[in-house]
Parts: sequence; structure tokens; C-alpha cells
Amino acid sequence: MTSAADILDRCDELARHSSLPDGLIERVYLSPEHAAVNALAAEWMTAAGLSTWQDTAGNQCGRMEGATPGLPALLLGSHLDTVPAAGRYDGILGVLLAIAVVERLQRSGRALPFALEVAAFGDEEGTRFGTTLLGSRALAGTWQSEWWQLRDQSGVRLDDAYRAFGLDPALIGAAARTPAELIGYLEAHIEQGPVLEERGLALGVVSSIAGARRFGILIEGAAGHSGTPWALRRDALAGASEIILAIERITRHAALIGTVGRLAVFPDAVNVIPGRVEFSLDLRGEFDAERDQAWQLIEQTAREICARRSLTVTSVQTHGAPAAHCSPNLRAAVATGIRAAGTDSAAGAASAAAPPPTLFSMAGHDAMAIAALTDIGMLFVRCRGGVSHHPDESVTEADVALALDAFEAAVLDLANRYDADAADSDQITK
Amino acid sequence: MTSAADILDRCDELARHSSLPDGLIERVYLSPEHAAVNALAAEWMTAAGLSTWQDTAGNQCGRMEGATPGLPALLLGSHLDTVPAAGRYDGILGVLLAIAVVERLQRSGRALPFALEVAAFGDEEGTRFGTTLLGSRALAGTWQSEWWQLRDQSGVRLDDAYRAFGLDPALIGAAARTPAELIGYLEAHIEQGPVLEERGLALGVVSSIAGARRFGILIEGAAGHSGTPWALRRDALAGASEIILAIERITRHAALIGTVGRLAVFPDAVNVIPGRVEFSLDLRGEFDAERDQAWQLIEQTAREICARRSLTVTSVQTHGAPAAHCSPNLRAAVATGIRAAGTDSAAGAASAAAPPPTLFSMAGHDAMAIAALTDIGMLFVRCRGGVSHHPDESVTEADVALALDAFEAAVLDLANRYDADAADSDQITK
Repeated sequence: MTSAADILDRCDELARHSSLPDGLIERVYLSPEHAAVNALAAEWMTAAGLSTWQDTAGNQCGRMEGATPGLPALLLGSHLDTVPAAGRYDGILGVLLAIAVVERLQRSGRALPFALEVAAFGDEEGTRFGTTLLGSRALAGTWQSEWWQLRDQSGVRLDDAYRAFGLDPALIGAAARTPAELIGYLEAHIEQGPVLEERGLALGVVSSIAGARRFGILIEGAAGHSGTPWALRRDALAGASEIILAIERITRHAALIGTVGRLAVFPDAVNVIPGRVEFSLDLRGEFDAERDQAWQLIEQTAREICARRSLTVTSVQTHGAPAAHCSPNLRAAVATGIRAAGTDSAAGAASAAAPPPTLFSMAGHDAMAIAALTDIGMLFVRCRGGVSHHPDESVTEADVALALDAFEAAVLDLANRYDADAADSDQITK
Repeated sequence: MTSAADILDRCDELARHSSLPDGLIERVYLSPEHAAVNALAAEWMTAAGLSTWQDTAGNQCGRMEGATPGLPALLLGSHLDTVPAAGRYDGILGVLLAIAVVERLQRSGRALPFALEVAAFGDEEGTRFGTTLLGSRALAGTWQSEWWQLRDQSGVRLDDAYRAFGLDPALIGAAARTPAELIGYLEAHIEQGPVLEERGLALGVVSSIAGARRFGILIEGAAGHSGTPWALRRDALAGASEIILAIERITRHAALIGTVGRLAVFPDAVNVIPGRVEFSLDLRGEFDAERDQAWQLIEQTAREICARRSLTVTSVQTHGAPAAHCSPNLRAAVATGIRAAGTDSAAGAASAAAPPPTLFSMAGHDAMAIAALTDIGMLFVRCRGGVSHHPDESVTEADVALALDAFEAAVLDLANRYDADAADSDQITK
């Protein structure tokens, strides 16, 4: 049976599939590394008793039938892609926990009132094409045909990348699942924040997920010799710097988070005034209206800064999602699971008496995409220092063991509820 | 005879040798484009009556003997390398004017009291290896052996780039000239500033050249998920932005110029807080002491900003040069040349009565490196809008014609002075 230690070993094994040297991890959508980790995940799914397939969007999937074949499924999942210089747990831990939970339930011999499926999504981070959740949105049936024109940094178009990976863009619709096929979606994930650590707790229930909006912002001035006098300078980087500080000030004041993660300077020479700067903005918050108001203020401030500096600013939204809310039913199951794990384990979980902590997620997750298709629920696992998207990302074996117990118990709680609901509706229809 | 129109045609021809697509110009040291323009320059030098060679640093050189073979030489020159997305005249115009001046004097049949040499330097901008004036400093004999370890953005080391270009690093010393071999250095160059245009004048005499100091500055924080709360963020780009604005404020206040021309963000992903930012600073001014004081203030301010943001800052000087002053003798020759061109030409030069304008150069030039070896003088040519290091760099044919006349007349004035000095010293020694 796969243990918490085995799961951490598997995280290490997946980390070796990277496009970066020197032990740094980067694994992007439709890359050779993506194919390699799909093959590993399929192997582990098969060993866990699932039948497996790679869907037409490059997501690695598996299924274990319930009490009778063909029942609607509870989908468990997360993603296997990473940001550049990533940690080894963001997304990955959720996939491996899901596989291990199915293995446990398979071996228990218990007949479930629903099938179990696992999805290892190929793109959540959006590292390669700038648009996130491509894998989970394909499964959710919310694929946008204009995405085929997205290009990566080498100029490769998404549809060509599909073909190079052995996928047919024309078949993307076959990856989409229907609401009738699913009873819900459960995802385990590292917290990517410090709340659980600060409270001394291993696990938490997610209430909702912030909706992020992302923008590409272009500042244009005029390149020129670095000896150019001040009166003639139209320095796009000086303007961008002022806008970046304004973004920090505006979002902080509004209790939102704004991140400028990418920035490129042109022509990028030591003795040339930057004539053009392109940068990204990732804007997120608990309330969509506040977030949208902050963006309006940022836009207006950027225009004022650029007017004063004889620069121009243009922006385009590259991603937008409303906040996603976890369903009461799945939240309750996750809470029950956490309580069960706390009772079963000696390794420092909260006492069974105290209600498990409920957290809001500033980070986006595949669950946001799947919310368009079915009910969602999420289990958060403590990570050291709240650090994520960094090689220092870290979880403990004890916490992973608790998460495994809690995840399994949450699925069983859902099965109990499902059975009870079925009994109720039987009574009613009788 | 090579006309101003021919010179502009040659600028266009050289512009076609570029490593960038779409008509953008970039030509860096020891590149295939460098070899191609050296071959063209050698061809034009040969046609102008010079004997030619490529020196052991990749500079294309030519020589025309004076009244008797083996006389010390007046060196005329500038550079053929460019910044990225460059104009077509910075450096290039000076090389082509020098070749055309030698051709005129060759055809005039006048026996000069010195030889004439032309140097087309292979590296002035420092685009490829970050350290400027590599070509002219090799000729000046100020090559530093630690430069062999410099690497370009692809990781190629300078000594390996020498070998790939067909040069032997062990022979670098053979490129160095001695003071006894030269009587001075004259360089024509576009102004790269707006002063001549504002005054309605085609040509100017350079008094001195600003000494630039360049630094590589590294800001380190911590990469992390873009959803990380404010209290845990150590955003290197937010810190760098604040430092860039401080550089602008400090240098502007001190009547200096500070340019941040290069900047790179790591890991450079839309949903990751930048953990590291590297940027360049080019700092220049008329007075070295003010420039050095400003750098101290910038360093101190950067440390304060980084301390407040839990970041670290480290910096390394990548280039440093004191201001270089043109010799009275060569300044006088250039002024005489400009007056002669003004009298000879109807195309809008200053009247012969008014003294030609004297300018300070904020931009660095090969002449700065050659000042370590021999006396220097410079002739500035008006450029449209003061724009340089940009595809919009522009000069008029009429101004080039005046520059050609003035450059030739400056050389003849030096010949006259040299003859007179020789006569004086003959009298004294007799």
C-alpha cells in the first residue's frame, strides 16, 4: 500500500523530469517532460487498480468503477505541470494523494455508490502559453477556440504544440466531461500560504478560491543613447518602475494582491535607454468587485504616469476568472475527513472536538475550472513558511500521512451521504 | 571619388549585415556580421589607396604612407559594431568619413609629413560582453587579461569567441600600438545629442568626453506564489523598481545621467513573485567627482530600500573611465577644419567669422580609449533630434558633405602645424 513516504518519494521522482538543469524544476504543458510524468502517473494509477487513459487535452486520467459499472464518478485530481524553478509539491502532491486514496479504497473492497476517477491535469500554471488551467478547462468543457492561436516564448502555436505532442486539436471536445458523469470534484493541495503553519495545524478546509485577472501591459517610449539629455528621454523602464510601485500601493491598500512576475526590456542593452517594456500583472482578491475597481485605478494611474513621461501604455487582459466557491456538501465531507484523520492519528492534528480551520485560497487551482462543471471541494495541507513556486517548497511526511487519511475519510463520508440520499429518494419515490 | 552620397550608401550597405531580422540592426564583436563588415571596410580602404590588415583584436586597419615610408601616423577611426536595434551612423559614419578623407588626400598627391591610418574598431559598444571599447583598448595597449573570462549571454567566453573568429588570444599584445608610432587620433561621430540641431549648426568641436561608470546590480528576495500574502513577500522587482526611480531622482538632481538599460527578472513567470532581478546602471557626467558621489548615494539608497523590503543588494562595477579631454592642438585643427568647410560650402555651415561650437560629449567614444596612447580630437556631426542607438538615427547628405570637407581640412591643418613645428625644431637643433 502506498504510504506517505512513498508519496514523497514519488514527488522526488517526478521532480527529476525537468527542462531546467542543476536540479531546478520546470515542466510545462505538452513538453517531453509532460509526456514522461504522464507515463509515470499512468503506471502508478494502474498499480492502484485504475483503468487509465490520456485524454485529448493531454490530461492523464484513471477510473475505478463503483458498486456497479458506469456510475457517475467522484473526480479527484490536481496538476503535474510547474512554474519555472518550481517546488515539488504544488499540484503534484494532490495527484499522488488522489491515486493513493483510490488504491486504499480499492484494497478495502468496499463497494462505493459512485465511481472514482483521478485527473492529473497537464496545465494549471499556464507557464508555457500564458493562459492558465488549459488542462482542467478542457475537461470542464470551457475550452476557447481562440486559444489555439496562443504562442509560447519560442513562437510555437498551441495547436502545433498539440500535434507535436501527438494530440489532434480537432478532438479537444472529447476531453470535455458532462455534469451527469460526475458527482463532484475533490482536490488536495498545499496551502501556499502561512495560515495553517501559524495556527499549528496540518490540514484545512477551503471555503473559496480567489478569482485572478491577469494582464499584459506594454509601455512604449523611445530607445536612445544612454547619454541622451533628460529633456529628450522617454524611458519606458522608468515609467514601468513607477507603475509597478503604484500597483503595489493600490492593491495593498485594497487588501488585494498584485504581482508583476514577468518583465522584459527592449532593446535591453547597457547603454541604450529602454524604448519598450512589457510586463505581466496578476491581480487577485477575495471579492471580484474590489479587484475590478483596483484594476480601474491602476489603469488610470498608469495613464497619468505615462502622460507625464511622454510614454504610452496599453494593456490586454490575458486571463480572468471569478472567485469559485466550494459546495457545502464537499466542504462538510472535507471537514469530516480532517476530523477523522485527527482522531485516527497521533501526529499532531487538531483535536476531534475543534472544528477544522476554514481557509480562503489566494492561489488559483484546477478546482476553479472544474467548478463550471460540478461541485468542488478542497483540502489544504500545511507547507513550510507558506513558500510555494520555489525550490524551498516543503511538506512533512507526517502531514502527508494525515492528508491521506483525511482525503480517504472525506471520500467515505461522501459515499455515506450519497447512500443516505439515495435511501431518502428511494423512500420518497416509493 | 567617394561623395557624401556614397558614404550614406555605404552606411546602408553595412546596415544589411545584422543578426536581427526585419531590418533591425545588431552587429556585435566577433560575430559573422563583424567579419562581413570588416571585409567590406577592407575593400573600401584598398580602393582608397590604403594597405590593409585585420589586427589581432579583430579591428580592421589600413595605412597610407606619408612623404617617406615609416613615418608616425595620424590615426583616423571609429567603430563598426552596434547596440541592438541600432541606427546606421553611430561609429560607422566616422569610419567611412575617415576612409573617404584618406582617399581625397591620396588623390590630391600632397606629400604629408605623417602617415595616415584608419582603424575600424570591432567593439566600442560592449553589447556582446558587457565591457566596452574592447577593440580600441586592444589598440591602445590597455587590454586587461581578466577580460578573457568575460562571457556573452550564451555563455561563450571571450577567449573562445576570439578563437571562433580565427584570432589567437595569445597574440592580443600585437594589436597594441606605441605612442611613438602615432602623432594623434581624430574621430568624426554623430553628436548623439540635440545641441547642434538646436543651434542650427552642422558641425562642432568636442572638448571632452564624459567618463562613464557601469555597474551590474543584483537584487535578491524570494520567489514565491503570486498569491503569497504581503507580509511574506520579498519581491525583488518591487525593490528594483524603487531603486530605479531613486537612480533617476539622484542623477537628475546632480546634473548627471543614469540609465538602467538592461533588466532581467527571475524566474520571470506570470504567477511567481520575482525572487531575483539583475540590472545594469550606466552613470555619466562631466565631472568625475560628482559622478562618484552620486554612485555612493545610489548605493546607500539601494541598501536602505532593500533593508526595508527584506531584500539584499550587491553591485559590481563592470566599466569605469575618467573623463577624456581633447588636446588643444587637435581641437584647434578640428575648429580650423569646420571653418574651412563653412567657407567652402554653401550648405548652411556657420559663417567663417563665428567660432565653431564646442561641445561636451555625454556619450563615450573610441577616442576615450585611444587617449591612453596619444592625443585625441573629435568632430561632431549633427543628427536629427539628437536620436541615437535607435533605428531613427539620421544625418543629412549636406551635413556629411560638410563633415567630409572639415575632416580633410583638419588633417591638412595638422600637416601644416606639423611642418611648422618640424621647421621650428630644425632651427632649434641646428
